[in-house]
Amino acid sequence: MEQQTPFILTINCGSSSLKFALFNHDDLSLISSGNIRDIGRESTIILKDPTGQLAEEIQEPVTDIRAAIQFLLKLIQESFTPYRLKAIGHRIVQGGQGHFLPEKVTSALLAHLEELVPLAPEHLPPELIAIRAFETAYRDIPQVLCYDTAFHRDMPFAAKHFALPRYLWDRGIIRYGFHGLSYEYIFQQLKQNAPQEADGKIIMAHLGNGASMAVMRDGKSLDTTMGLTPAGGLVMSTRSGDIDPGVILYLLKEKHFIGERALNELLNKQAGLKGISGGASDIRTLLEQENTDPKAAEAISLFCYQAKKYIGALAAAAGGIDTLVFTGGIGEHAPVIRERICDGLSFLGIQLDTAANKKASDIVSPTGSPVTIRIIPANEEIIIAQHTQHWLHSH
Amino acid sequence: MEQQTPFILTINCGSSSLKFALFNHDDLSLISSGNIRDIGRESTIILKDPTGQLAEEIQEPVTDIRAAIQFLLKLIQESFTPYRLKAIGHRIVQGGQGHFLPEKVTSALLAHLEELVPLAPEHLPPELIAIRAFETAYRDIPQVLCYDTAFHRDMPFAAKHFALPRYLWDRGIIRYGFHGLSYEYIFQQLKQNAPQEADGKIIMAHLGNGASMAVMRDGKSLDTTMGLTPAGGLVMSTRSGDIDPGVILYLLKEKHFIGERALNELLNKQAGLKGISGGASDIRTLLEQENTDPKAAEAISLFCYQAKKYIGALAAAAGGIDTLVFTGGIGEHAPVIRERICDGLSFLGIQLDTAANKKASDIVSPTGSPVTIRIIPANEEIIIAQHTQHWLHSH
Repeated sequence: MEQQTPFILTINCGSSSLKFALFNHDDLSLISSGNIRDIGRESTIILKDPTGQLAEEIQEPVTDIRAAIQFLLKLIQESFTPYRLKAIGHRIVQGGQGHFLPEKVTSALLAHLEELVPLAPEHLPPELIAIRAFETAYRDIPQVLCYDTAFHRDMPFAAKHFALPRYLWDRGIIRYGFHGLSYEYIFQQLKQNAPQEADGKIIMAHLGNGASMAVMRDGKSLDTTMGLTPAGGLVMSTRSGDIDPGVILYLLKEKHFIGERALNELLNKQAGLKGISGGASDIRTLLEQENTDPKAAEAISLFCYQAKKYIGALAAAAGGIDTLVFTGGIGEHAPVIRERICDGLSFLGIQLDTAANKKASDIVSPTGSPVTIRIIPANEEIIIAQHTQHWLHSH
Repeated sequence: MEQQTPFILTINCGSSSLKFALFNHDDLSLISSGNIRDIGRESTIILKDPTGQLAEEIQEPVTDIRAAIQFLLKLIQESFTPYRLKAIGHRIVQGGQGHFLPEKVTSALLAHLEELVPLAPEHLPPELIAIRAFETAYRDIPQVLCYDTAFHRDMPFAAKHFALPRYLWDRGIIRYGFHGLSYEYIFQQLKQNAPQEADGKIIMAHLGNGASMAVMRDGKSLDTTMGLTPAGGLVMSTRSGDIDPGVILYLLKEKHFIGERALNELLNKQAGLKGISGGASDIRTLLEQENTDPKAAEAISLFCYQAKKYIGALAAAAGGIDTLVFTGGIGEHAPVIRERICDGLSFLGIQLDTAANKKASDIVSPTGSPVTIRIIPANEEIIIAQHTQHWLHSH
C-alpha cells in the first residue's frame, strides 16, 4: 500500500455554514475545499477542486452543525483515501483575554471557551460543537484553534478600550476585534505582492454578512470597527453595528417594547440591512430590489454611508490612507457597493477606476491615484493551515 | 413712575446647573446673565454684567432646581425693578418627533414632554420642574420652548436613522441630535463674520461635559454624533458615547455584573472620562493630573482619539472639510485638547497655529491653511432670546 499523503483540515464554522479545506501538510497546497451552506434550511453542499473551481454542488438536507460534520467525516473517509489527516485547524471567533496565539484543544481550554459563549453567542456554540465532534471522530489528531481576535491584540490603548469603568476592562470587556484571520491574509498578500504598500497606511474592509474594517500603519494594527463582540462597528446583514447606548436603555426602560432576550434577537438578528429593508438581509437581493422597493434602497444607502464614515474615522486614526482593500462576499463581488462607498471620498485620495471596478480587477483605482484600491479575495483557510502547520512543527 | 423696559428671560437648565440671561425685548441687548452651578453640592451663584464680565460670585447652598428658581425669581424681583418680564425662553433637550420649532408651553405640551422623560432622563425632569415653577410664579407670561434637536431635523435619511427595524423609527427611535441651539449660533456667526465659509463644509465641535459634533455643507445639516439621547457619539465626561451593542447585551446577560437600572447609571454617569480615570470627570482636572496619574492621561487620550475619529467620519459624510469650529467649555478653554485632537489630521488639511491656539484666537489655523479652524464661544442664550422674540412677534 502506497504511503498516504498527510493533510491539514481547516474548519471555518458559522452559525449556518461550515467551510472546510484540505491542505497538503508539507507544502500547504490545496487538495480540496467546500462549504455546507444554509444548514437547517435548504442546505447546499459545494465542493471545489484544487484550483478553487466548483467541482460539485449537492442539494441535500443538512439539519444542523452536527449533521454537517458527519457529512464531512464521511466525505473525507470515502473520497480522500490517498490522504491521512495530520491535524485540524479551526477558526475560533474569540478566546478571551490571554488567548490570542494558536493553541491545541484541551479539555481545560474547551471549558474556558464555554464560559465565553455569552461574548459570542452566535459564533462560539457551533464552533464548540464542531471541535467536540472531531474529538470524538479523531481522538489522537491535534486540533489547533486560531483566534479571529489575534490580529488586533496589539492595538494601541485608545483603540482597545471602551470609555467604560476600568474594572470592566479587567473583566475582559475590551475591544477585541474580529475577522483577524482574513486581515492577516490580506496583509500577507500585500507584503508579498506590494511590499511598498504593506508599510503604509492601509484600511482593509472585510464586507460580508458580518462586516468590519481594520486599519494598519507601519505594519501594525491600529484600530478596527468591531468591538467586544461581532455586533459592533459597521451596519451588517442583521446586526445594527455601534449605536447610541441610550437607544438600548430606552428600549429596556419601555418594558412594553422589549425584554432582555428579545433585545439580543433584535440587535443581532433583526437589525442591520434586514431591519431597514423589512425583508432581505443580503446585499445581492437588495440590489435587485432597490429600483422597485424604496426600503431596499434605504438599506443599501445606510450600509454604504456608514462604511464611508468608518473609512474616514479609520483614516483619521492612521493620519491618512495609502491603500484601501476590499474583501469578503460583498467586498469582492458587489462593484456598485464599492463604488457607492468610495463616492465622495476623493478628498482622501480615494478614486475608483469605473471599468476596473466593474470587472473586479486586482487594482480598481486609476494608475497614479493617491490611494491604491485593491480587491483581495478572502482566504482565511490558508492562514488557518499555516498556523496549524506551524504549531505542528513547533510541538 | 417711569415705564419699565420689557425683557426676555432665557433659561438653560442642566441636571445640576441653571443658566439664565435677561435680554432687552426690543433689541435683544444683554441686561444680565448668570449661572447657578453645582446645585445640590457646594453650589455657586455667578452673576455677570452686560458685557459678560463677572459681577458677583456668591457661595450659597442651593439644594435643588426648585431652590435655584426661587433664588432667580427673588433676584429678578429685587435687582431688576426697572425691567418688566415679557416672556421666558427655555432650552429644551428634546420634544420628540413633530416638535422641533419653538412653541408656547401648554398643559398638553407639558403632558407630552412628561412622556418623553425616558428619552432624556438626565435633562428633561429639571427642565420640566423649571417650566412649572415659572408657570406658578408668572401665570400670564408666555414660556417659549426651544428644542435642542431642531437644528438637525432635516438631516438626510442615512444620518437620521439607526440600522434598526423600521417599526422602531415609527416609535420615535431615530437620531435627533442635540446641542442644536449652540450649532445654530455658530452657523449664524459664520454667516455674519465669514459668509464664504458658511456655505462650505463645516464641522462644529461642541465639547463640554456633554460633547457632540455636527457637520454641515451648503448651509445644510448633514449629520451629528449624538443620537436618540445625549449618551451617543463622542466619549464624554461621564457618558460612554456610541458603543458595540454587544457590550450591553453581555452586561445584561451576565446578571451578576449588572441590572437594568445600574446599566443606566453605568453608561450615563460612571462611564466616559470618569470611568477611565477612576476619578475626575472634567478635562481641566484630568489635565492637571495627567503627568502624575496614568489613568488621567488615558482618559484624555481616549477622549481626543475618539474626537479625532469623529472628525474623520464627519468629513467623510461631507466629502471633506473647509472649516472646523471649536465651542463649549473644553472646546473654548483647553488649547492642549484642541492640539491633540488636530494632531495627525493634516491629511484633511487641518493645521493648528500653535501660538494662536495657545491664546485662543478667533482663528487658530495658519493663514492660507486649507481648513480654517475657529473658536467661537457658545451662546445658546441669544438664540433662545431670538426665538422667543420671534415667537412673540408672530403671535
